[in-house]
Amino acid sequence: MTDLKSKFLHVYSLLKSELLNDPDFEFTDDSRQWIDRMMDYNVPGGKLNRGISVVDSYKLLKLGKELADDEVFLACSLGWCIEWLQAYFLVLDDIMDGSHTRRGQPCWFRLPKVGMIAVNDGIILRNHISRILKKHFKGKPYYVDLVDLFNEVEFQTAHGQMVDLITTLVGEKDLSKYSMPLHHRIVKYKTGYYSFYLPVACALLMFGENLDQHVNVKDILVDMGTYFQVQDDYLDCFGDPDVIGKIGTDIEDFKCSWLVVKALELCNEDQKKSLYENYGKDDPVCVAKVKDIYKALKLQDVYLEYESKIYEKIINSIEDVPRKEVQAVLKSFLAKIYKRQK
Amino acid sequence: MTDLKSKFLHVYSLLKSELLNDPDFEFTDDSRQWIDRMMDYNVPGGKLNRGISVVDSYKLLKLGKELADDEVFLACSLGWCIEWLQAYFLVLDDIMDGSHTRRGQPCWFRLPKVGMIAVNDGIILRNHISRILKKHFKGKPYYVDLVDLFNEVEFQTAHGQMVDLITTLVGEKDLSKYSMPLHHRIVKYKTGYYSFYLPVACALLMFGENLDQHVNVKDILVDMGTYFQVQDDYLDCFGDPDVIGKIGTDIEDFKCSWLVVKALELCNEDQKKSLYENYGKDDPVCVAKVKDIYKALKLQDVYLEYESKIYEKIINSIEDVPRKEVQAVLKSFLAKIYKRQK
Repeated sequence: MTDLKSKFLHVYSLLKSELLNDPDFEFTDDSRQWIDRMMDYNVPGGKLNRGISVVDSYKLLKLGKELADDEVFLACSLGWCIEWLQAYFLVLDDIMDGSHTRRGQPCWFRLPKVGMIAVNDGIILRNHISRILKKHFKGKPYYVDLVDLFNEVEFQTAHGQMVDLITTLVGEKDLSKYSMPLHHRIVKYKTGYYSFYLPVACALLMFGENLDQHVNVKDILVDMGTYFQVQDDYLDCFGDPDVIGKIGTDIEDFKCSWLVVKALELCNEDQKKSLYENYGKDDPVCVAKVKDIYKALKLQDVYLEYESKIYEKIINSIEDVPRKEVQAVLKSFLAKIYKRQK
Repeated sequence: MTDLKSKFLHVYSLLKSELLNDPDFEFTDDSRQWIDRMMDYNVPGGKLNRGISVVDSYKLLKLGKELADDEVFLACSLGWCIEWLQAYFLVLDDIMDGSHTRRGQPCWFRLPKVGMIAVNDGIILRNHISRILKKHFKGKPYYVDLVDLFNEVEFQTAHGQMVDLITTLVGEKDLSKYSMPLHHRIVKYKTGYYSFYLPVACALLMFGENLDQHVNVKDILVDMGTYFQVQDDYLDCFGDPDVIGKIGTDIEDFKCSWLVVKALELCNEDQKKSLYENYGKDDPVCVAKVKDIYKALKLQDVYLEYESKIYEKIINSIEDVPRKEVQAVLKSFLAKIYKRQK
């Protein structure tokens, strides 16, 4: 484990213990224990990339100058707020999607004692963010911007999730609804803001910046988020399950994936008919037919071309950002995802 | 309909239309329509007491001076934020409780097209509050206190709900867990803060007050909220269903009601045995046995005595509040609930 990661994990235990001793609620022993277990089960078990990237970004903004201890603590706390936000989304998404496993264990709501209490647990995770921000940032000049930022990003994520839900779930499975603009809209809002923009925005605020003067930074990061999600869609079908750590099921799940949208754009009438017949069925024969069409349409090549074009576009936009230290932050994000295999 | 109520409802349609045209999200036609319907279904259909009481309280603070149009609009908007908060809690509570009807119609999540999308809809309702506050209060000196207030009250309500859920639902039905301190803790947090403290706190902030200087006001209102919930528990069993508009099922539902807690305090061993055997069973014979014990223990008289004592306690605390206009606000709340039959 890197030094930073172990520092980051140490901050988790500090924040957790503060939350379990919050003077604004009179915990019973049972309820304190519940929250303790609920946090440990849902918050720290991911890759922590989003959270740690707040600290990395802040360091880059400071041009490598050594951070004071309290700066490290605050940057880690903001990173954890993003991890908490992610945990909140995932706990509730799993309920809505009827998922079974998450991060290699049963989804929280699948535990027999938990069930629908998980809805309230999700809310409590969201509320923890407000508590952390209030406790550690209330006196800072950027406190109100920080609170507004988390609210705005949550709003955008929930709206992206809504478009995804009502397109994918409501009514009959209907491929004619799927299009590139719709795909773009879902991934931009559902993933781009909280995974890419939020960590950098947190670092910028801590660094004393006014976010209104970084609209281009937001656009670039949301573009990266879109690219990241397209990769995800691609790897779900063409990635190596041993490397990714799971077997993709987007075809079975009738997901509005970049691949199916691209296939619908490029296919002939026969292929279209076959996609309509076979997409979204939990049957290996149907899945194989869909994959055959993807291969016939050379979607792997189409993807590689998409990747080099979007990479070039993003790099050019980064070069237009006036300040070198902000460029460095953006480049470090891009380097982390370009040509990733997992 | 009173003039104020129709004004209040007019503000709802303004806020709704702003939210449906929020520039920070690119709505699809489907998603705009969804949110439109979801708001109308869940937000304005209650008694609106909490929301309207913000306007009433603000008027009392201004000592009856005529309000300017924008003051009325802002006070109504804060009132609607409370109604939105309530809608958010109810949409999610109904899922967690597995309820069937709410306000005389099927619960939102029971609609065939909705189902678990209701979880995300609940989140969106919560996010609407942040949008309304940001759009109409961002420039005000009390903006950050307002945002903190809603966060704090949401935190307390969610934690009260948690204690309720893990006591009532987890494990076997076990009456020995029920006690007056537990009942008090649940209702204080789950109901008191958002139903009683929040409207007055909103009015005080708009009036330019610092909430830290009104801690006694908070305590008094939370006491009133507790009293209100005890009334609710009492009326569920002893109220007139024609007046209340529903038939109580607290006994069947194994609720941690003031009545059962009081009965457990006062009963003899035989009665205790019978309570353990019959409480929480969906069988009219069992329910009748529980009610017989309540009657044998004269819980109606015990309740009347509780009511006069708590009334006296609250009145005395109100008299200790230094400012007359704040006293007037508190007295108007108390008058609305004292000896209520519904």
